[in-house]
Amino acid sequence: MKITFLPQNITCEAEAGDTILQAAVKAGVNIDGNCAGKGTCGKCKVKIVEGDLSECVDHHHRLSQNEEEAGYRLACCHKVSDGMVVEMPEAETTASRKKKMVILPENFEPGETVEKHCITVEKASLANQNSDEVRVEQALGWEDLRFSYSALERLPQALSEGEEVTVTLRDGEVIDVEPGNTEDENYGIAVDIGTTTVVVMLWNLRKGSMEEISAVTNPQGAYGADVISRITFVMEQAGNLSVIHKAVIDCINRAIEEFAETLHIRPQNIYRFAVVGNTTMSHIFLQINPSALAVAPFAPVFTRGKTVLAAELGLHANEAAEVYTAANIAGHVGSDITAGVITTDLMDCDKGHLFIDIGTNGEIVLTGNGRAVACSTAAGPAFEGSSITQGMRAARGAIEKVDIREDSVDISVIGDCEPVGICGSGIIDAVGELIRTGIVDKSGRLLDRKKLEKKGISEGILKHIREDGKSCDFVLYFSEDGKNDVVITQKDVREVQLAKAAISAGITIMMKEIGVTLDTLEKVSIAGAFGNYIRNASAINIGLLPAVNEEKIVSLGNSAGIGASMILLSERCREESEIVAERIQHIELAGRSDFQDQYMMAMMF
Amino acid sequence: MKITFLPQNITCEAEAGDTILQAAVKAGVNIDGNCAGKGTCGKCKVKIVEGDLSECVDHHHRLSQNEEEAGYRLACCHKVSDGMVVEMPEAETTASRKKKMVILPENFEPGETVEKHCITVEKASLANQNSDEVRVEQALGWEDLRFSYSALERLPQALSEGEEVTVTLRDGEVIDVEPGNTEDENYGIAVDIGTTTVVVMLWNLRKGSMEEISAVTNPQGAYGADVISRITFVMEQAGNLSVIHKAVIDCINRAIEEFAETLHIRPQNIYRFAVVGNTTMSHIFLQINPSALAVAPFAPVFTRGKTVLAAELGLHANEAAEVYTAANIAGHVGSDITAGVITTDLMDCDKGHLFIDIGTNGEIVLTGNGRAVACSTAAGPAFEGSSITQGMRAARGAIEKVDIREDSVDISVIGDCEPVGICGSGIIDAVGELIRTGIVDKSGRLLDRKKLEKKGISEGILKHIREDGKSCDFVLYFSEDGKNDVVITQKDVREVQLAKAAISAGITIMMKEIGVTLDTLEKVSIAGAFGNYIRNASAINIGLLPAVNEEKIVSLGNSAGIGASMILLSERCREESEIVAERIQHIELAGRSDFQDQYMMAMMF
Repeated sequence: MKITFLPQNITCEAEAGDTILQAAVKAGVNIDGNCAGKGTCGKCKVKIVEGDLSECVDHHHRLSQNEEEAGYRLACCHKVSDGMVVEMPEAETTASRKKKMVILPENFEPGETVEKHCITVEKASLANQNSDEVRVEQALGWEDLRFSYSALERLPQALSEGEEVTVTLRDGEVIDVEPGNTEDENYGIAVDIGTTTVVVMLWNLRKGSMEEISAVTNPQGAYGADVISRITFVMEQAGNLSVIHKAVIDCINRAIEEFAETLHIRPQNIYRFAVVGNTTMSHIFLQINPSALAVAPFAPVFTRGKTVLAAELGLHANEAAEVYTAANIAGHVGSDITAGVITTDLMDCDKGHLFIDIGTNGEIVLTGNGRAVACSTAAGPAFEGSSITQGMRAARGAIEKVDIREDSVDISVIGDCEPVGICGSGIIDAVGELIRTGIVDKSGRLLDRKKLEKKGISEGILKHIREDGKSCDFVLYFSEDGKNDVVITQKDVREVQLAKAAISAGITIMMKEIGVTLDTLEKVSIAGAFGNYIRNASAINIGLLPAVNEEKIVSLGNSAGIGASMILLSERCREESEIVAERIQHIELAGRSDFQDQYMMAMMF
Repeated sequence: MKITFLPQNITCEAEAGDTILQAAVKAGVNIDGNCAGKGTCGKCKVKIVEGDLSECVDHHHRLSQNEEEAGYRLACCHKVSDGMVVEMPEAETTASRKKKMVILPENFEPGETVEKHCITVEKASLANQNSDEVRVEQALGWEDLRFSYSALERLPQALSEGEEVTVTLRDGEVIDVEPGNTEDENYGIAVDIGTTTVVVMLWNLRKGSMEEISAVTNPQGAYGADVISRITFVMEQAGNLSVIHKAVIDCINRAIEEFAETLHIRPQNIYRFAVVGNTTMSHIFLQINPSALAVAPFAPVFTRGKTVLAAELGLHANEAAEVYTAANIAGHVGSDITAGVITTDLMDCDKGHLFIDIGTNGEIVLTGNGRAVACSTAAGPAFEGSSITQGMRAARGAIEKVDIREDSVDISVIGDCEPVGICGSGIIDAVGELIRTGIVDKSGRLLDRKKLEKKGISEGILKHIREDGKSCDFVLYFSEDGKNDVVITQKDVREVQLAKAAISAGITIMMKEIGVTLDTLEKVSIAGAFGNYIRNASAINIGLLPAVNEEKIVSLGNSAGIGASMILLSERCREESEIVAERIQHIELAGRSDFQDQYMMAMMF
């Protein structure tokens, strides 16, 4: 049966019994979602424009009555019907937002990792019977030129079209030969495979400039929200590794096809890839079994950087294009962290420098006193908005900033529209403000009106407290009919509390390990788009970041993406990344008796 | 419709309208033949045991009446019928003969090009969280170990089966990991792709011993007898290069399957290939367009050695197995010659040393006075028996030696059976003897009885002369009923005359070029099985070889196969072969004004 997805207007064949989410995955259409089709997260909301609406399965009450009546359904719970037309939530173009997050460091110098030279090759004659390869070598003025197999195959045809050809060189090897002058068509792809989002960046290797960026939901989400559930999926059945591997390859290929179409480039002219991601993503990307990462001792199959052919992975590019996956640091500290570190001066720093990447796992790198250590803490998905009742990605309609003033609550919403949920930075800000104002106490309890009244909280704020007898919630936004309010619940505060405790305990252990104190901590670098949007004061208020002077806190933007791009553009950076990964010592928190103590202590706000 | 081939008992589907030859090629059954299905060479004679015999197409009278009545037909002219059973001419096991031709030089030392080490790898623990790759490195005691992609993929599975694994190493890279101890299962394949015959040799790389050899007719013969007609086939249609390329790949794969079955080895344990052949064969093997080799200036696409993955060519072997095709010297002096040269001391020789490989092309290398030159002469297929009226391959039933005595003619037949034809060495011997005895004069004319009687030739010999009024033939063998006589015709003598003239002129030009004379010529090395069977005196008699002392003539055996094996077994030999190919200067006879003169002069016996 046929199903059509809007606004892309993609029609595909689905099987009876498929859910809309399953059909979307098969069609390569990205739908948000991170409960792996369990119907619990409510993120895969779509509007059914045409088709069977008779049933509405929503066990977890993710849809309001209004939404249900308007034809909204959960894609993971609703079955397809023939001729169905489904409209996706407004396609948020996070790309421009993402692009702003990938700014190369000012002192970065791209090296020519792939060179293209237009040359004029002498025709063969009885006086010059040299082979095509030798005549190309003579034209280039090089010695001992090697040819990739695919370049060799193409050589006679290219030379037959004229004496002017363009040769593509990598490490002294000709990897492509094209008729005419194609020197400018020299592309590379940097990829940051996040558990949630895959960012694909197209670079012109000659100019060192970013041509386009694509950020889409990682389609592996259909098989599990986090790395552990995806590894579990892999372990369930022999073919599953290939399925989940193919999902991410297809996702990158779709981005490449999009680039090719909109920018009129040929995938044939993509010669190099640099890929980063957490260690599980790195394993799955290379179709290497990640099972060992799910259980102690979490030993990966590999950590070092790997070079394979794009063709071996099925990536759309030149036949000789190489894919470099950057070095991981440990089982749960991946190459996204390695890449992030090379964008900073972390490794030079003799005083304390903290690098922190906050996501489902909080990865922490700390340098100082001549040492470099890293750890990973299980923060859970709270800071990505996903275990939060009305949490959502940093997309249109998400509350990203909260100010609790004397008598009112001010919010900032992405897209300046009516809010529909709250994203990671919004949650930190909201909880930070609730703590600053004493509405949430040190133990994490959202106080009731009576207690707050005693503390002298104004009526304008008190009306935001919603009590149900057992616990209190805090309403950030009141909708007109009250049905679409956005609320922070007591449970949400607890989620934040658990998450920040894990990260905070990790930071404390690291600092103890290499003897860095709050006084000697000179810099705190925050990785990820996240860092750009959180208010440092709030992050300090909730105890997520150490209480340093705010000036010491630096936001790195998409440091994984920036690092991947630097590795793509420069052999020197690639080598540096390998040294960094080798030098950073991994500390396994699960192996330390002091971690549980620290964790309990860090629980208080 | 079904057709069955005996003695292999292979049944396959053929299409109505297919000739038996076409069906055989599709089924992977080797049938001799070198007129590319034109019905002229008569080499593809088969016996139809069951099936439609009604028609007998034999425009060129290649079948005797006896044969026709016994059910013999030409496979290239006879169409298949459903249920047909075809018996091939007795499968000549030239393999044992071929094996004897591949003896490594006494001073040759195999290097361990591929090493296998059985190691015990520590299990990961919280105390040793190192990755699988690092723990393998620790077990090996190596540093900076690299892994091929396929080895990495296999690593977690192999380690899960036990702590003892065998790693396969090539150039410091792990290319395979297997559970348990498989150190002895370490194989390589050397291939000599002749225009007529493909020789595939299985070597144990650990032991440096040949395990098996297979010699089969090059299935490309179905698309043309010689390199020029095969190139013409390639030029006819875009897909033809792929067809003729696949023919030789399939042929090698069949040999590998045979080895695997009979010796119980796994193609997975084949890690390396070394391949030699003439320049056209090298191009087709790599699926590189050889069109330029058919017309002046005969510039190849490549001459240098090339390494590609077996997987890229579709060869059955380990995923990481590499295929090295040795360096060619020029468009018509291929890597089979390069390989042959490294089996000799040719490159050390300061006095004259002539290397000659006699086939459809006569390739000549001459060293001396500090120089090394090579050329190729178009000898035609006479010395391979194929332009000779009753010529055949050196197989059972072929006359390989001829002695014309005072009063009788003695012949030696391969397999000591009734002769059915004459092979290359037999032709040279026969013509050599006819010249020695004066039956053929200096101009190449087979004298009639009258003239011979005058010269005092005995009646016992005279009765071998068969006159038809215009010209004379010489009967080597009289069959009982006269229908299966084996005869050398005047035309055959002319074919030999043209062929030897080309080679002889080439040798003369080479000698002039670098100043080597008959006196300073110290050694003549003859490549190919051919050299083992020709009688040096006869070769000198007909003027094919320079008139040196017979002791200076050395037969090298299958020097191309020996050289390929040496390159397979030793990196040093591989490097040497590249230097040799680079150092030998190619002389294009087509570009020399003195060649035609020499050719005319060399025409006389």
